[in-house]
Amino acid sequence: MQLLLDRIKRDGKIRKGNVLKVDSFLNHQMDIKLFSAIGEEFQRRFADEHITKILTIEASGIGIACITAQFFDVPVVFAKKQQSKNIDGGVYTSKVESFTHGRVYDIIVAKEYLAPEDRVLIIDDFLANGSALLGLSQLVLDSGATLVGAGIVIEKGFQTGGELVRGRGIRVESLAVIDSMTENSISFR
Amino acid sequence: MQLLLDRIKRDGKIRKGNVLKVDSFLNHQMDIKLFSAIGEEFQRRFADEHITKILTIEASGIGIACITAQFFDVPVVFAKKQQSKNIDGGVYTSKVESFTHGRVYDIIVAKEYLAPEDRVLIIDDFLANGSALLGLSQLVLDSGATLVGAGIVIEKGFQTGGELVRGRGIRVESLAVIDSMTENSISFR
Repeated sequence: MQLLLDRIKRDGKIRKGNVLKVDSFLNHQMDIKLFSAIGEEFQRRFADEHITKILTIEASGIGIACITAQFFDVPVVFAKKQQSKNIDGGVYTSKVESFTHGRVYDIIVAKEYLAPEDRVLIIDDFLANGSALLGLSQLVLDSGATLVGAGIVIEKGFQTGGELVRGRGIRVESLAVIDSMTENSISFR
Repeated sequence: MQLLLDRIKRDGKIRKGNVLKVDSFLNHQMDIKLFSAIGEEFQRRFADEHITKILTIEASGIGIACITAQFFDVPVVFAKKQQSKNIDGGVYTSKVESFTHGRVYDIIVAKEYLAPEDRVLIIDDFLANGSALLGLSQLVLDSGATLVGAGIVIEKGFQTGGELVRGRGIRVESLAVIDSMTENSISFR
């Protein structure tokens, strides 16, 4: 998706430890017009899949998921990273290891919001080690819903997540795949 | 906003401790069509204010803020509840006490995303004790930007937050104000 590649090249900042900082437009400040173009592209790629629900994870996936949901005309559910007092009844839960924060945490979704008849599209901003995506996939599998695939804004192609997730037969559509980063440049696949 | 009041009456669930559970449409599963009506209403109420930026707080404010931003054609910034490895440089910070989780935490926004020339609208899902809203307001004040006001989806009118925040001269527009809740009923102002 050329608009996104151009934006990453222009406004992305590379930090040590293979961190790509895109918080001017993607995950701290959010460019909603760009999100709209992203959502439209996800809709184009998954148009024939009869999606009934979008699943994402707090916090930075939520904005992209909500704008994308408008193109599919479906609700969004976001997995929470900790138990909230306001969730009662049963939950689906799995574990995620954060690349950015370097720790393991539980994610949960209330059982009532994923049903066997659902056809679920997972949306997230980044795919790196694949842990968040596998954790979300597990929630969908546990619910008996159909996992149609995952729409990712930026995939770090030099990390193992993409291969790991696709190796399990999950369709992953990434709008920008980074092959390598140096201090001064980004190479896209 | 009648559409919202009807939805709260139909799908809201009251739990002990004055907890209103609206996670089937507002803050776990999200009804994006409802969000669109909410965003349009916020735009109507703040139409003449020349908003340049929407500020919210992770996680449940993000979806509403992003859909609302489409009606104002402005970017969204969300305050983070913890320091991230991916934020470098200076940040504005303040403290928030969570009604739901019963603890105090720091919220931060990178300085580069709030500028003195900005006219900021704060968007959030709930106003209860006012702590989140005051914390967000402090970030705006510290940046030198103009705080135009706050758009709140549900205000718990029987708690002190609304009075506290309005008492500081901040314009607050709440789309549903709850006067009282019992185990079986909700009264709106």
